[in-house]
Parts: sequence; structure tokens; C-alpha cells
Amino acid sequence: MPSRIAKVQSLLKERTCLLVTNPTNVRYLCGYSGSNGILLVSEHNATIFTDARYELQAQAECFDVAIRIEPNLFKAALENEESTVCLFESTHLTVAKLESIQVIAPKITFVPSEIAVEVFRVVKDATEIGLIRQACQISTTALNAVIGQVRVGLTEKQVSRLLERTMIDLGADSIAFETIVASGPNSAIPHHQPTDRAICSGDLLKIDFGAKLSGYHSDCTRTFVVGKAAQWQSEIHQAVLKAQSASRSILKAGVLGVHVLEQTTMSLTESGYLEFFRHGLGHGVGLEIHEDPFLSRALTDTLEAGTVVTVEPGVYLAGQGGVRIEDTVVVTETGYENLTVFPYELQEIG
Amino acid sequence: MPSRIAKVQSLLKERTCLLVTNPTNVRYLCGYSGSNGILLVSEHNATIFTDARYELQAQAECFDVAIRIEPNLFKAALENEESTVCLFESTHLTVAKLESIQVIAPKITFVPSEIAVEVFRVVKDATEIGLIRQACQISTTALNAVIGQVRVGLTEKQVSRLLERTMIDLGADSIAFETIVASGPNSAIPHHQPTDRAICSGDLLKIDFGAKLSGYHSDCTRTFVVGKAAQWQSEIHQAVLKAQSASRSILKAGVLGVHVLEQTTMSLTESGYLEFFRHGLGHGVGLEIHEDPFLSRALTDTLEAGTVVTVEPGVYLAGQGGVRIEDTVVVTETGYENLTVFPYELQEIG
Repeated sequence: MPSRIAKVQSLLKERTCLLVTNPTNVRYLCGYSGSNGILLVSEHNATIFTDARYELQAQAECFDVAIRIEPNLFKAALENEESTVCLFESTHLTVAKLESIQVIAPKITFVPSEIAVEVFRVVKDATEIGLIRQACQISTTALNAVIGQVRVGLTEKQVSRLLERTMIDLGADSIAFETIVASGPNSAIPHHQPTDRAICSGDLLKIDFGAKLSGYHSDCTRTFVVGKAAQWQSEIHQAVLKAQSASRSILKAGVLGVHVLEQTTMSLTESGYLEFFRHGLGHGVGLEIHEDPFLSRALTDTLEAGTVVTVEPGVYLAGQGGVRIEDTVVVTETGYENLTVFPYELQEIG
Repeated sequence: MPSRIAKVQSLLKERTCLLVTNPTNVRYLCGYSGSNGILLVSEHNATIFTDARYELQAQAECFDVAIRIEPNLFKAALENEESTVCLFESTHLTVAKLESIQVIAPKITFVPSEIAVEVFRVVKDATEIGLIRQACQISTTALNAVIGQVRVGLTEKQVSRLLERTMIDLGADSIAFETIVASGPNSAIPHHQPTDRAICSGDLLKIDFGAKLSGYHSDCTRTFVVGKAAQWQSEIHQAVLKAQSASRSILKAGVLGVHVLEQTTMSLTESGYLEFFRHGLGHGVGLEIHEDPFLSRALTDTLEAGTVVTVEPGVYLAGQGGVRIEDTVVVTETGYENLTVFPYELQEIG
């Protein structure tokens, strides 16, 4: 299999180089995960430039590239570069940085790159899927361990920390993003930050969380009820589950992204809750927690086998409560594999 | 005291607005801390634009601004804006985003802003200093509690996690950055990531860590020795401490940034270790862990009272070990206040 760098090189025209500044793309192409580093790929060369703090780390991590330790990365990379055209990542490079590199290399023409490393990243290889699967398993194992300990009187913050510690104890490098533990009326806030609110009997409890492992993320949401479920709670949970399942069930290599969204939209229209679903249906998961593809009306592309996405419809009744159900799944030739295996039914806990 | 927004407005020319896209600057000016939001300030208006996920959060957090919930933030902000000139943050806005907003508002001239919110943020007010002080106290209290528990055989990761948990237990919202616990030869790596290496007798143990509280950070490094200190260990520790103390001791409102660096350079020249100090001397700390001012040769400005900076020289002997000593301090009219109070001498632990 050709290396990721070789894949970039095969797309480069003569005397053209690609300047990679987005750190996630740098990591994807050559393994370097430090906070300061840029990668320059030309037809026959690929070099990572970083500073002295990261010398040993670069030596340990990098593949397929030469390493140069320099105080001024952009100057070192561009000042003697022989390409006449330098493609840059226009969705990452800032206006000020572009100006400064035009000064460093006045003879080079800088052009927004049509080669998007983000697009290479959409379809994951077996190693990547393995890491995401492991991160997902850590998450669901942790949720399983923690949910039995949730009691009336514990605060959202306490539950959040318990869950985070359990993931770390199970081998996560860190959490994947700020954990959402949202109880009672707070569960109606899609991106709620855990507070000191104590969990009460009758609350919906929405938990959206993930683990990070060797750079790869997991993302999972389940919603519980504390004590006996009221009818409205069962009803919206049922509506969300039906929608989520409808979207999941049509996943398969070749399906249109927008069709996945339509399954949820149709299902929530039928149940009458569509107006209470006001965010995207899902997103890619990999080296970033949110990455291409985004499951929205704009996604008119088909999904390929090996694409890892979330499916996460939600219904939020302001002031009352909300339900979201989210899985991280990998699309396959024949359907999909759910990586976040955890029961779907509305569990009564506490 | 005029609000931060009013300060921006006082600098705006007629029919000119400032588009704030850097999330830290958005938070500083109007309190909003969500991940998706932009702020438009014109002579008589200031509005934060965010999406439905953050509606309640924006209502809870924002001061001095109107709130608009919109699916397309930039379109909503700019399409009917009456200013003829829009200043933008060229060190944050990407080349692609600039192109897209020029399409949204073809009649507006977009100009890199000379009003830098980062510069407003350098001098902290009493509330900000209070939060940083609290974050620093959490850190040093945690280090004090944890360092007595460090034993030969514990891994770097275990020590790192123990320290992080203790900070959370003491009230930190989260850690301020990835904790560095670097033992033995790893201590020679300035930005080492904790590994499964078990701590050995005779190791230097460098710990660089911090807590985050209400958005504000702390940053502290101390280096210990496990068991009895060898002579070379005492010597480099002594050299670093002398340098750090020399730089700290001249801090005072009005001192030139470059002079603070020179104290360390002179001290390390005297002790013969200058060549082993290869990073900056310090940086501002606030809503970001690294922010203006950066203590480098380029800092020819004077430091003002209320500026919070780190002072962190280090000496790193590749393959052997390294020492860094770092405080977060606030510059005052008469000198400075050290916010990370923790003993300086080389403690023998384990």
C-alpha cells in the first residue's frame, strides 16, 4: 500500500509543493503529534519542521518524512524551496500567516490547495478503525460501570467526573471532549456543561461522552430516566430511538448522506417531534471528534465503506427535558458495524 | 469603568465594525464561552451570533451584547451590516473564511484589524487575577499532596493522573494543559508526554502542570530527585534556580521584557549551561495557557502592572536529565506576586 505521503505526491503537479499546517493533517500524513510543526510535501521530498522542544518526539513518531529542527519553521521550509507553486490549506492558514509567508518566499505563488487531506481522512484503515473501536469499548464499558452507581442527590459534575475517571482507568489517554451530563430540564440543552445541580427523581439524564486513544476518538450518547419514566419521557425517547434506528438501518457503502438524514426527518415528522430537533444528524469521527463527513442536507455524496460517523438525533423540550441517542458506527460494504454497543431502551436508574 | 466592548467601540472609526472570531477574544469581550459564536462590534451595537445549541448558554453568560441565534452566523452578522469597513482578526480568520465573507458582503471592505483584543487581555483586572491565583493555589496544593505519595515503581502516567485527579478534587474545572511528568532521561525532553516508564531511584522528576478555573489557567513546574541527588543533578538544579530567581527578581511594572530574559541568559552563561536552554523564558497566562506577552528577545515592550507571566528557564542534558523551574507571577507596581508558591530547593522524594 502506498504511504499517505506518496498519495499526496501522486497528486502534485511538477514544481508544486503542498504546505500542511493543520496539525491533525500533519499527524495523519506523517505521525507527528506535537503542537508546533508544519509539513512540506513536494514531488520527491517530504519534511516535517518543528522546534527543539519536539526533537525527540518527532524522531519517535514520524514516518515517511525527514525531520528538521528549526527556530523559524516557515522560513526554514520555504526560503530555499524550489517549487514555483505552493498549495496551502486555506481552511486552516490564517490571513496574517499567508501574508508573512509571501514575504519569506516572494518568488513562490501561493494557491489554496485543492488537495484536501481532510478528504483522505474520511475512509479509515483497519488500524484506525481498531483504535476507534477500542475507544468506543472503553466508553461503553465505563458507562455500564457508572450508570449503576448514579443516585438521586449526586450532581451532574460528580457523575461526569466518575465517568471520566473510569474511562481513564480503563485505558483511555484522555476524554474525547467535554463530557455532557445533563439532568432534568438541563437535558433539553443540547450542549449542556455539567453543573452542581443534584439529580432528582423523575429527571431525564442525558450523557454524551467519549474516550481518546492514540489520537482517535469515540462519541456516544444515551439518555436515562431517574426513577419511573413519565409518559412524555417514554414518548420522546421512543420517537428519538425510532428515528435513530431508521437512519442507522439504511447505512451501507454507497448510500447518500442526505438519505441518512431524511430517515430521521421522516420518522420525527411522523411522530410529530421534528420541530424539536435542531442540530445536525451526525459527523465523522477520527483524529478529530468532529470531522468530515457531516450528515446534513448538504451531504449529497455517498458514504464509502470504512467511513466512521455518528448517528445522533435528539428531541429537546425547553424547560422540560430532552433525549438524544448517539452511536459511533463504521459503514461497511453490507451495512454498518456499531462501535458503541450499549442498550437502547429507556433504562430506569437510581 | 467602561466595559470591554465600550473600549473597543471607542477605538472604532465611523462606519467601521470589528468582527471578532477568535473564541478567546469573544469570551473576553462578552462572556460567551461556547464553541460556535462570533461577535460583531460597531460604533453603537454589539451582537453575539451563535446557533440553537448554545442559546441558553449565551443567555446565561453574555454581558454587554445582544444575542442572535442563527443557522449561518457570518451571513446573519454581515449581510445587512451598514458599516463600509469591517476589521477582522487576521491572526485568526482563515484565508477561506475571508473569501466566503467577502462573498456574503460584497459592499464591505474587509481590513486586518489594528485593534488587537489580545493586547487588551495582557493586563488583568482584579477578578481575573483572583481566578488565576485560585487556579495556582489548587495546583500547588495538589502538588504538595501528591509529591509525598510518589514512590519508585509508579509510572509517569500514574503520577500524572494522580495529580490531575487531585486538582479536580480541589475544585479545578479541568486541567490547564497536558500534564508533563518526565522521569530520568525523559526529564531532558522539554515537552515530554507521560509514558508507562516506572520511576527509578536516582531519577530527576520534572512536573509541569496546571489547573483551569472559570476559563483561567495556572502554570507551574518543579523538578524533584528520587532518592539522593547526584552532584550533577544538584548543580543543574542550582543553575536553573539561580537563573529563574535572577529573572524573577527584576520583575516590576516598567521593566523591559527583554531584560527579564537577559537575567537568565547572563546567569546561565556564568554557570556554563546556556547552550542547554533552548526555549523561551516565559509567556502570558490568562484565558489561554500561552498568550501575550512572550518573554523573548523580541519583547522590547515594558511589562505593565497586572500582567501575568510565567518565568521558566530550564537546562536539559540529552540522555541524562533536565530541570525546569517555573512560576506564574503577576507584575505589580513595586515588584511581583508569585502565584505558584511552592518550595524552590531540590527536594529528595520517594
